[in-house]
Amino acid sequence: MSTPTSTDFHVFDTTLRDGAQREGVSYSVADKLAVARLLDQIGVGYIEGGWPGAMPKDTEFFARARTELKLRHAQLVAFGATRKAGVRVADDAQVRALLDAQTPVVCLVAKSDVRHVREALRTTLEENLAMVRDTVEFLVGHGRRVFVDCEHFFDGYAADPDYGVQVLEAAFAAGAEVGVLCDTNGGMLPMGVGRVVADVRARVSGRLGIHCQDDTGCAVANSLAAVEAGVTHVQGTANGYGERAGNADTFALIANLVTKMGLPVVPAECLPELQRVSHAIAELANIAPDDHQPYVGASAFAHKAGLHASAIKVRPELYNHLEPAVVGNDMRILVTEMAGRASVELKGRELGVDLDGHADVIGRVVDQVKVLEADGWSFEAADASFELLLRAQLPDAPPALFELESYKTSVEHWGNGVVVSEATVKVHVDGERVISTAEGNGPVNALDNALRQALVSRYPQLADVSLADYKVRILGWSSGTSATTRVLIDTTDGVGEWTTVGVHVNIVEASWHALVDALTYAVRHRAR
Amino acid sequence: MSTPTSTDFHVFDTTLRDGAQREGVSYSVADKLAVARLLDQIGVGYIEGGWPGAMPKDTEFFARARTELKLRHAQLVAFGATRKAGVRVADDAQVRALLDAQTPVVCLVAKSDVRHVREALRTTLEENLAMVRDTVEFLVGHGRRVFVDCEHFFDGYAADPDYGVQVLEAAFAAGAEVGVLCDTNGGMLPMGVGRVVADVRARVSGRLGIHCQDDTGCAVANSLAAVEAGVTHVQGTANGYGERAGNADTFALIANLVTKMGLPVVPAECLPELQRVSHAIAELANIAPDDHQPYVGASAFAHKAGLHASAIKVRPELYNHLEPAVVGNDMRILVTEMAGRASVELKGRELGVDLDGHADVIGRVVDQVKVLEADGWSFEAADASFELLLRAQLPDAPPALFELESYKTSVEHWGNGVVVSEATVKVHVDGERVISTAEGNGPVNALDNALRQALVSRYPQLADVSLADYKVRILGWSSGTSATTRVLIDTTDGVGEWTTVGVHVNIVEASWHALVDALTYAVRHRAR
Repeated sequence: MSTPTSTDFHVFDTTLRDGAQREGVSYSVADKLAVARLLDQIGVGYIEGGWPGAMPKDTEFFARARTELKLRHAQLVAFGATRKAGVRVADDAQVRALLDAQTPVVCLVAKSDVRHVREALRTTLEENLAMVRDTVEFLVGHGRRVFVDCEHFFDGYAADPDYGVQVLEAAFAAGAEVGVLCDTNGGMLPMGVGRVVADVRARVSGRLGIHCQDDTGCAVANSLAAVEAGVTHVQGTANGYGERAGNADTFALIANLVTKMGLPVVPAECLPELQRVSHAIAELANIAPDDHQPYVGASAFAHKAGLHASAIKVRPELYNHLEPAVVGNDMRILVTEMAGRASVELKGRELGVDLDGHADVIGRVVDQVKVLEADGWSFEAADASFELLLRAQLPDAPPALFELESYKTSVEHWGNGVVVSEATVKVHVDGERVISTAEGNGPVNALDNALRQALVSRYPQLADVSLADYKVRILGWSSGTSATTRVLIDTTDGVGEWTTVGVHVNIVEASWHALVDALTYAVRHRAR
Repeated sequence: MSTPTSTDFHVFDTTLRDGAQREGVSYSVADKLAVARLLDQIGVGYIEGGWPGAMPKDTEFFARARTELKLRHAQLVAFGATRKAGVRVADDAQVRALLDAQTPVVCLVAKSDVRHVREALRTTLEENLAMVRDTVEFLVGHGRRVFVDCEHFFDGYAADPDYGVQVLEAAFAAGAEVGVLCDTNGGMLPMGVGRVVADVRARVSGRLGIHCQDDTGCAVANSLAAVEAGVTHVQGTANGYGERAGNADTFALIANLVTKMGLPVVPAECLPELQRVSHAIAELANIAPDDHQPYVGASAFAHKAGLHASAIKVRPELYNHLEPAVVGNDMRILVTEMAGRASVELKGRELGVDLDGHADVIGRVVDQVKVLEADGWSFEAADASFELLLRAQLPDAPPALFELESYKTSVEHWGNGVVVSEATVKVHVDGERVISTAEGNGPVNALDNALRQALVSRYPQLADVSLADYKVRILGWSSGTSATTRVLIDTTDGVGEWTTVGVHVNIVEASWHALVDALTYAVRHRAR
């Protein structure tokens, strides 16, 4: 559990708490568990999972995390506020909920700007200090490690520098391990951050942290300026997701700290996971990945072929600020091809498929992925579809579960306001023609039910398989009627989950592809 | 023509030259002229228009600019390279083309990294200095002001600091007005940029400039660090468009320099144009505006109201790093689960609906939003649906566009692999019963087509309305069959876009709600 990261330098990710403030983002509990697993793979030290008590979904997340989340690198953190003014800490339900979350670490938000204490909290400066002291002591007394986010610290410091220092002193005296200086409104520039951090360090002893918002476009740089001035705890969110202009991007932070500042803040083997994890989290958040994102974007190391193409080929290091593979990226020329032969081989090994001596298979898979990705398929988040594609190229590839003759699915909204969906599939299973009709909550659910019903007597294991999530993205809408739909389906058998993908101009046909892969994977690779 | 900008501090925009290196961007000559006019409106001092001679389109741009482009603030700049090695400058066609462009200013790119001189240019260090000297002298002799971009300056400085200084000295001695230090590969951090700039300033006299790429996510911060260290010429591109991770964003640079560093680098009346110009250039580049872009993004000042709405209402400056109107933006309040009366009132004001004296309306809207959001509706990204909901509670609310009797939509995958979608709607419009059937790319597109067809003779303005984007989110899937689907639809009439929402267990019925809102909004609130 303990790594150099978690003791020497804290990389603290708050994608699931502050990052979830981004407009339009709404994670399910299963999404949150999946995001936490991904963040753990890049070696962050701390994962802030949410605000138990305040948000019912977050309470459920922490409850499920206790049994379902096995983290290798990170410690799970519950976020909450200091006790209410005028209330005994032991009587504060919100603080109690923090204990109930049963995380090793709690991160408390505290007011540190005199104006916010007076005008938003509507209490006295003394009572706010007591709220910090009491809440930290209470949680430490119950065996928690406590970090304190000092909200609006920089704006507050400009208005009254002494009060921010008093809040930090109160937190440290009560047993807090980190005092985090937050640029909550995001208006700082690096030079100012560096000066304030240096100033505070000279006045307070205790580990300091930094939390930056990107309102000036400087969140990453501000965080690094704070590190140069001595903080050893840095907060960020995946892809910089967050309210307004967002937060400091965890991926850029890690990449800069490790490759530019020489600080080994994550285990060495984690760095090449940055690109994959960035894209997988974008899929889970249902946000199109930013091709131009530093380090991890599909275009981050892409060169417009032309003038320097041959020079780049001979001495790529003269034209790249970093070897792209260090962060799991590659030097792309055209489409998001999946990194070529080496990564197919690697991926095969990961899936337990030995591709040594199968150069032809690797070549065919690379070619097929290139063609499919140009059409909008994406295998970054759809491991199960990729595994099926890979295994289909092996000499002993099994036949399809069934042959499709035709399907039909419909939705009717009747005069009485009732909405009904129905589907019929006609398939051939082991030479037998099966016609199956079923209803469902929607056209895809009806198709799913009809197909399962057609297959379940031949493949009884499908009875235990159900859809866990369904995501839709419209690609290239600008071309009007030729817009393409990409569907990702998460399927579970109660033990594990797998993800499949389908792409087509018609959402139902795209879903059908993902469904067929989902059920095929269940039969071929789960029920063994 | 001459403004404080063009003499005291240079804001130099290269959207049309370096920014055009961004993947997928391809401006027509008319686009380039339009972009230049827009950039002039934000008061930049210099607009680099392209590379005449090297790019035929750019040659044409400069020719047309002479008659078609009237700039109030900016000087037009032609970009080119120093003469070829071993060629007399007067015989170099590329240098001649720079004169033919007839711009007051020329920006020359020069190699300043010994490795690039030797390995990419394949010439000697001496000859490269002579190329800089000859070309600058020649252009100055022909009455041009000359700026010199020192390519790969920072990487070169790390390898051999003396050579970069020699290039700058050669340029200044030959009459160059600015020596621009370029972080061409984009690998720098602000602290390093500040140190190198300070170092160079101590060794060279002459105006220094900075050009940063965003490969570490620090392009804006690096530029500002250079300004703090003494440069007075800053290069950027609109919205940070550029190769790989892009360039420093001109809008963030200007906003930070003016509002955070107190440098009046553009005329005061230009600052409120930033938001409009940013979005207009995004349209011309055919790139979706980034809602989360600092200062100018649609979400840059958006707050998830809830908890703090009343505090924000009283003291917005406690929650914004800047008054949004300063850069032409506004404070959007997101209506979320915790929406209270204050945020509905604020939102109403934003939509131009005066709710003073309508306490009952506010109360009903708050109640309705609470119930709907508990069912999975989300209005934070669906302003148009919220406006319809709000206006429906006002005394003079108009009736629905039509009454639905029933609809039916289907998808069939035939034996020959063909996939077809069809829909039929039965509606009553102004008392008349209309039955309409249409095909589409999917079940929702077919419904959309059938409904429009039914309504267009009564509401002809719908002919100009089309779907711009379609997003689907499955909510609370864990509860199995009772999972809910949320659909967001972006609709455009070619002038503006609006977003509507629908929620139902059935994806088609959810889409139907969002569709009906989209068309209702088009008729009621767009076509006025």
